[in-house]
Amino acid sequence: MKKLINTADSVVEDALNGMAAAHPSLRVRDNVVYRAAGPRPGKVGLVSGGGSGHEPLHAGFVGYGMLDAACCGEIFTSPVPDPIIEATTSVDGGAGVLHIVKNYTGDVLNFEMAAELVEGVEVASVLVDDDVAVQDSLYTAGRRGTGATLFVEKIAGAAAEEGLPLEDVAAVAADVNRRSRSFGIALTSCTPPSAGKPIFDLPENQVELGIGIHGEPGRTRVPIAPARELAGVAMDAIHGDMPLRGDLLVMVNGMGGTPLSELYVVFGEVAAYVKGRGARVARSLVGNYVTSLDMQGFSVTVCPLDDELTRLWDAPVETPGLRWGR
Amino acid sequence: MKKLINTADSVVEDALNGMAAAHPSLRVRDNVVYRAAGPRPGKVGLVSGGGSGHEPLHAGFVGYGMLDAACCGEIFTSPVPDPIIEATTSVDGGAGVLHIVKNYTGDVLNFEMAAELVEGVEVASVLVDDDVAVQDSLYTAGRRGTGATLFVEKIAGAAAEEGLPLEDVAAVAADVNRRSRSFGIALTSCTPPSAGKPIFDLPENQVELGIGIHGEPGRTRVPIAPARELAGVAMDAIHGDMPLRGDLLVMVNGMGGTPLSELYVVFGEVAAYVKGRGARVARSLVGNYVTSLDMQGFSVTVCPLDDELTRLWDAPVETPGLRWGR
Repeated sequence: MKKLINTADSVVEDALNGMAAAHPSLRVRDNVVYRAAGPRPGKVGLVSGGGSGHEPLHAGFVGYGMLDAACCGEIFTSPVPDPIIEATTSVDGGAGVLHIVKNYTGDVLNFEMAAELVEGVEVASVLVDDDVAVQDSLYTAGRRGTGATLFVEKIAGAAAEEGLPLEDVAAVAADVNRRSRSFGIALTSCTPPSAGKPIFDLPENQVELGIGIHGEPGRTRVPIAPARELAGVAMDAIHGDMPLRGDLLVMVNGMGGTPLSELYVVFGEVAAYVKGRGARVARSLVGNYVTSLDMQGFSVTVCPLDDELTRLWDAPVETPGLRWGR
Repeated sequence: MKKLINTADSVVEDALNGMAAAHPSLRVRDNVVYRAAGPRPGKVGLVSGGGSGHEPLHAGFVGYGMLDAACCGEIFTSPVPDPIIEATTSVDGGAGVLHIVKNYTGDVLNFEMAAELVEGVEVASVLVDDDVAVQDSLYTAGRRGTGATLFVEKIAGAAAEEGLPLEDVAAVAADVNRRSRSFGIALTSCTPPSAGKPIFDLPENQVELGIGIHGEPGRTRVPIAPARELAGVAMDAIHGDMPLRGDLLVMVNGMGGTPLSELYVVFGEVAAYVKGRGARVARSLVGNYVTSLDMQGFSVTVCPLDDELTRLWDAPVETPGLRWGR
C-alpha cells in the first residue's frame, strides 16, 4: 500500500488538520468540522456526517449555503453519538437542527441515538437512500445513501440559509431524496489505510456494476466495456427505476481515483442518453464529490428539478468542495 | 488497462464533448475550448494549451477571469500550430493575445510557430518553467512547466479582465512564473490510453522524487515514507531553490489518482513546514488541478505574494475548474 499518510491511525485527524489549515472558514474540534463563523441566530442548522473516506463529502461541504457541521468518523466507520450531540448543540441557532443521514445501519443508529439524547434542541432527520443498485447491502437495510447526499445537503442548505423553518427544510430535503436515484460502477477496489490492501478483488478485465461507496458488492461483474456501454448500464438502472423526464439535475461523480477527463467522457454519454429519452440535463456536476478512497469508477445521480428546486440549487454556496454564485 | 473511455483514439474528443455538454459557458471547436461568449472588445485574450491528460488544466480554466481559449493536443502531445493560430485569431478583442506556454520542447516550438504565422494579432508569450526538480528532462531544455501554470493563468487572467494592456498582462504573468517553484512526487506511474499500460515501473515500496507530469524521470527513487517526510522532501527542494519568506500562495496538487483526503494530509504538513520557516500560507489551493492522467502522487507549488498579486489572485473567477467570488 502506497498512500500519502503519516500513520493509518492518524489519517482522519491529519486530513482534518490539513483542511483547517487550508480553509480559514472552517474550525475542527474532535473530528467535527464547523463553520468558523458559528451558528446564525434563527437559521436552521444542518448536520451531516458518517465514516470518512468519501471526501469532499461531508467535511468539504461545510460552509455558507450547505452544512453547519460535519461529524467525521474513522474511515468507513460511523461517528458515535457524542460528537453528533456536540455538533447538534453547537450549531443550533434557536431554529432547530436537521440531521442528514446516509442509509447505513451504523449511521442511522448513531444519529438516532444522538437525536434522542440531545437536550434543548429540536431535531429533524432526513434519510438518504438513493442507490437503486441493490435492495439491502452489507451495511444497509433498504437502499444505500450515496450521491444524492450532496443534492440534499446543497438544496436543504439553501432553504435553511433563506430562513425557512425546520419543518420546511426537512420537507425539501426529503423531497430531494425521494426524487433522486443513483447507480455506481467500480473499475478497481479501494484500499483502506488500516487494511493495507484492496478490500475486494476485481480481476484486471472486469468491473463491478452497482458498487457501493464502501466496496459493498453490487449486482454483478462484467468485462470492462466502452464508457458508452457502462454509462448506459447505469442510466438503464436509473431510468428503469424512475423514468427520466423533464429537467434533470445530473451528477457524474468519480470514486476518488478516476481522473476528471474520464468523468467528462462518461458525462458526454450520460447527456446523450438523457437527450435520447426526451429529457433534459438542466443542471450538472462532474467531478470527485462522493468518493470511496482511491477507488476507480464512477456513479451517476439524477434528480428531476422543478422551478423551486432549481432556484435552491442555483443559490450561492461557499464551501471547500462546492462554490458558486456569491 | 481499465479506463472510462470509448476508444483510445477518441478520448480527447469525447472528453471535450462531455465538457461542452456539462458547461454551457464553453464552446468546443477542433479540440479548442473557447468561452461561449466570445472575445470581449478591448480585453487582452489569453490562450494556453498543450498535451491533454492534465485536466482540469487547461480546458477547465477557460472562463471569466482566466483563459479565453485552451488548445488541447492528444494525450501528452503538443497541439500543432494551426489550432493555436485559429484560437489566437478567434479570441483577439483588438488588444492582443498572450500565449501561456509550459516549457516542453513541442509546446514551445508550436506556440512560437503559431505566434509567427498568425496575422493581424499582436502576440506576447510567457514561458512557465517552475519545476525545480531537474534542470533538463525528457521533453524539456531547462526547467519543466507544471503547477505554476495555474497561478499564471489565474493572475494574468485577472489582470486581463481588468483591462490592462498586453505588455502589462505579459509582465505580471512573467513575474508570477519568476516567483513560483514546484516539486512533485509520484507513488505510481500513469497509463496513457494509447499505451495501454503504465509508462514506467515503480516498485510497490518506492516513490519517485521530482517526477514530471508526463512520467518523466525525477531525481531519485526512495522507499515510501510518511507524508510528513515526503512533504519535507518537496519543500526542502523548493526552499533550497528559493528561501521561503513572507506571504505565500501554496498549492498542494494531486496527480489525478490521489484522493482529496491524502492531499489534505500533505497540505497540513506543508503548512507546518512553511510556518516553521517563519513564512505564512496566505492563500492556498488543495486538489487535483495539474494532473498526469491516473498517476498517484502530489506536487507542491509556492509563489510569494505581494499586495497586488494577492488582489489579482482573489479577483473573481468563473471556470469549471476554479470558481470564486463572482
